[in-house]
Amino acid sequence: MEKIVIVGGVAGGMSAATRLRRLKEVAEIIIFEKGPFVSFANCGLPYAISGEIEERDALLVQTPEALKKRFNLDVRPLHEVLAIDPEEKTVTVKHGEQVFTESYDALILSPGAKPLVPAIKGLEEATNAFSLRNVPDLDQIMTHLEDKKPQKVTIIGAGFIGLEVAENLHKKGLQVTIVEKAPHVLPPLDEEMAAYVKNELIKQGVNVLTSQSATAFEKAGQEIVLEDGTVLASDITILSVGVQPETDLAKRAGIQLGHRGGILVDEQYQTSKKDIYAVGDAIVVKQQITNEDTLISLASPANRQGRQVADVLGGLTRKNKGSIGTAIVRVFDLAAASTGLSERSAKLAGLNPQVVHLSGKDHAGYYPDATDIYLKLIFDADTGNIYGAQGIGAKGVDKRIDILATAIKGGLTIFDLPELEFTYAPPFGSAKDPVNMIGYAAINLAEGISENIQWHELTEALENGKQLLDVRSEMELANNGRFQEALHIPLDELRDRLSELDPSVSYVVTCHSGLRSYIAERILKQAGINCQNLDGAFSLYNTIKPEMIIHD
Amino acid sequence: MEKIVIVGGVAGGMSAATRLRRLKEVAEIIIFEKGPFVSFANCGLPYAISGEIEERDALLVQTPEALKKRFNLDVRPLHEVLAIDPEEKTVTVKHGEQVFTESYDALILSPGAKPLVPAIKGLEEATNAFSLRNVPDLDQIMTHLEDKKPQKVTIIGAGFIGLEVAENLHKKGLQVTIVEKAPHVLPPLDEEMAAYVKNELIKQGVNVLTSQSATAFEKAGQEIVLEDGTVLASDITILSVGVQPETDLAKRAGIQLGHRGGILVDEQYQTSKKDIYAVGDAIVVKQQITNEDTLISLASPANRQGRQVADVLGGLTRKNKGSIGTAIVRVFDLAAASTGLSERSAKLAGLNPQVVHLSGKDHAGYYPDATDIYLKLIFDADTGNIYGAQGIGAKGVDKRIDILATAIKGGLTIFDLPELEFTYAPPFGSAKDPVNMIGYAAINLAEGISENIQWHELTEALENGKQLLDVRSEMELANNGRFQEALHIPLDELRDRLSELDPSVSYVVTCHSGLRSYIAERILKQAGINCQNLDGAFSLYNTIKPEMIIHD
Repeated sequence: MEKIVIVGGVAGGMSAATRLRRLKEVAEIIIFEKGPFVSFANCGLPYAISGEIEERDALLVQTPEALKKRFNLDVRPLHEVLAIDPEEKTVTVKHGEQVFTESYDALILSPGAKPLVPAIKGLEEATNAFSLRNVPDLDQIMTHLEDKKPQKVTIIGAGFIGLEVAENLHKKGLQVTIVEKAPHVLPPLDEEMAAYVKNELIKQGVNVLTSQSATAFEKAGQEIVLEDGTVLASDITILSVGVQPETDLAKRAGIQLGHRGGILVDEQYQTSKKDIYAVGDAIVVKQQITNEDTLISLASPANRQGRQVADVLGGLTRKNKGSIGTAIVRVFDLAAASTGLSERSAKLAGLNPQVVHLSGKDHAGYYPDATDIYLKLIFDADTGNIYGAQGIGAKGVDKRIDILATAIKGGLTIFDLPELEFTYAPPFGSAKDPVNMIGYAAINLAEGISENIQWHELTEALENGKQLLDVRSEMELANNGRFQEALHIPLDELRDRLSELDPSVSYVVTCHSGLRSYIAERILKQAGINCQNLDGAFSLYNTIKPEMIIHD
Repeated sequence: MEKIVIVGGVAGGMSAATRLRRLKEVAEIIIFEKGPFVSFANCGLPYAISGEIEERDALLVQTPEALKKRFNLDVRPLHEVLAIDPEEKTVTVKHGEQVFTESYDALILSPGAKPLVPAIKGLEEATNAFSLRNVPDLDQIMTHLEDKKPQKVTIIGAGFIGLEVAENLHKKGLQVTIVEKAPHVLPPLDEEMAAYVKNELIKQGVNVLTSQSATAFEKAGQEIVLEDGTVLASDITILSVGVQPETDLAKRAGIQLGHRGGILVDEQYQTSKKDIYAVGDAIVVKQQITNEDTLISLASPANRQGRQVADVLGGLTRKNKGSIGTAIVRVFDLAAASTGLSERSAKLAGLNPQVVHLSGKDHAGYYPDATDIYLKLIFDADTGNIYGAQGIGAKGVDKRIDILATAIKGGLTIFDLPELEFTYAPPFGSAKDPVNMIGYAAINLAEGISENIQWHELTEALENGKQLLDVRSEMELANNGRFQEALHIPLDELRDRLSELDPSVSYVVTCHSGLRSYIAERILKQAGINCQNLDGAFSLYNTIKPEMIIHD
């Protein structure tokens, strides 16, 4: 009987196993999982800390017994594969004290990724520092919380998981400090979008330290020394500085590794060794937008790859087309999401991205409880190709980023975004959805109807002699604050007061969100006055540079 | 100065006007609107009835004064354009007692659609029958509610607006009866998906009469006689049987009309007459999926067309690519949405659609408050082309249908759906989103991994000798009911009990939602047993044909 051995029993491995069974009823399918659990919901781990997911066992989606009954799978937790012999087609497996050899016809590696443990002095002696990647990690943290009743928590790393853990520990009543090495939280997002998240964290009472890193753990981890010498008292520390592919086993078997140590596979998931396949967080994939090698550690691609490798073994035609990377995190009352490339990563990839910011509402403004959505689109102004998108807001951010992720996967351009026809009734959306609107805004830039300058370009522009023109109302200036040295003409008076402008000066126009300033820009441009729109306008600027705003 | 005249000041007309101003600062732009208000939120009208939108004035998004100030537009409500002289390039306008002539360089018609008034005996004498298309209609209804304190309301027509009005009047405490001529509510949806909505209406206490129509109004509308002779007492009646293009003016001007009397335009919105353009509900558009002429009465395309015609007049290259039609309605605790073609409309268009149903969750099942989503995909099993999709559920239906609408607009096929990478964190979605899953299900059908039969094919299949096999658990049968004459083997026992099946018989396999029956189908097929999966399984069947289910 054909025998397929799978190493790793979570997303990729278990998707492969169950699909294989549906395609190959008579094959022997063995899954070796190093840990005590298979098919658990690792994305739910942070929510079990606060009790928002009440029962930790709710995360244990499947058991070996249930998988045996339903799929006739031979699932073996606490079985670590120590070695692979690609010539003999065997694996060496350790289970407790026992070590044995198992043969295979095909081997699928789905080892996943493991937490990066930063090389910090004293970390090994720290008895209160944990990662959160699996259920035993969760159990350790919960035991520590229970036994030691910690008050102060330090989160090292403000990525998706770090922020989820921060929120859930804060909800549990702990005093939370986040330490992030990058200049801003959520490094996958761009700085100004991440600023909304930082402000929300601070508003909720979380202490946020960016451009900072831990240099030493002292007193068994009770004190953390930062780069600038600050000493943080920390009753419990969560390490969430990222993950790295778990590829020791593959490496020892002589399987070729690539980008950042990930397992190299072809488009059918075959490694450099015959009959050995690999899927999930451990493999190198193509970033579909740049076609560059990358590592992507997300559940959705892992599941898809697992199913696809089963299809390949089942004789179906499949191809790993790569990933774009789409992710979301809830941070208290906000959601922050991204898909594709950030502006920064697009530039790093040698692209020449244009960006545009838009603020809209999750549903029709005239219907109760509409909330703000802030979108950013990263695109190529020449071809219209969409490189990526980011969104922030209380509601409906997941929907907009999912739509834009679909557009990117489908090769749609900015010119297609206004064409998209969405479900519209007042509780659900708007006749012109923010996705349509950001398409219009991008097209205006691509076609030269509008020119924008970015928040980080403003200071230099003003130093170079440009004049800031604020077209908000008097009341907005009084209530929300004003830019230093801005000329002020409310939009509705602009046509009558054009003579107050100097035709030899170039203007940067702003309003609250960027819509009225665009209307002003069009009036000025057609009056022969040189001008640009401050993208994102006052509201974005006030989010990222509140210290520059004057409150009278 | 160039003079552009626009007839109709709501979605299409006002989008055209404001965009025109941004492109042509110096043109004279005059908007004639027959009614008292411009740019009002007609999609919000039903919600103002119940007070869910508290202030009726919230629907008045813009005023002529504000539009003058901001966009220098000459907006003239209560101005009816009586005639167009395409040779002289003038319009004749009536305002109160006054009739005058206005010249134009370009004329844009955006007259919209008007409610279809069914030809029913006695309707003209009915003093309590209203349509709901604009603010004066709303005011009339509100006055009637206030003055007459009606108890019983009859809604004629169970389309999107009819259902919204039904919900809002029910919330106001009225006793609601809906009369729909078609065999099911929400005719744009297919029968079995609309059944979820019908059940929700009934559950909430609304009286639903389908395959019924009003034949006469008696006693000034206080009594409505139905086809079958039933007499309904009705204190107030809302007519919502659909709309027709408002094209009398265009017709009188000799402009060519097409499909169902809509205004014919080319891809740049030009009518058969030079310098006369038309946009919005009144024009014939291409249904993008079939390329057939159609009328689409939705806010989103109207807004887009208005902007595009302004771009055309502004010298930009634009093309009306047509519409696919995407819509949603909230019906009490459910949302029902559709995009593209229904199964029925695909068949009417001569296509050969395959369909598949899927039930999933709006977000990860292990995270609190996950709710059911029912999706239907209509596609071509040979090419993989997606014709349409429908969704029902408490939450997240808008997102899935918007994603699928984007996929259709982008020309994605069923083979692309599993590739889509969505925002996943437990509060927002699942690692395998229902959209991914319905893609997998469709691919299984297209590749012959699975075969399904539809709910409406079951009776005939069983009459022709097929055997129904139910693989749910004993407990489910006891709690939820069972099919008559189904063989019952729980899925987890199936491998051990294959000998109970007759290899000469063809089986139809069912479970609760269709996932376990698909697993059973794969086991049986690989054991050489002929079988098909009952698509949507027990849960769909019980929704559309509850009378066929036995409760022990």
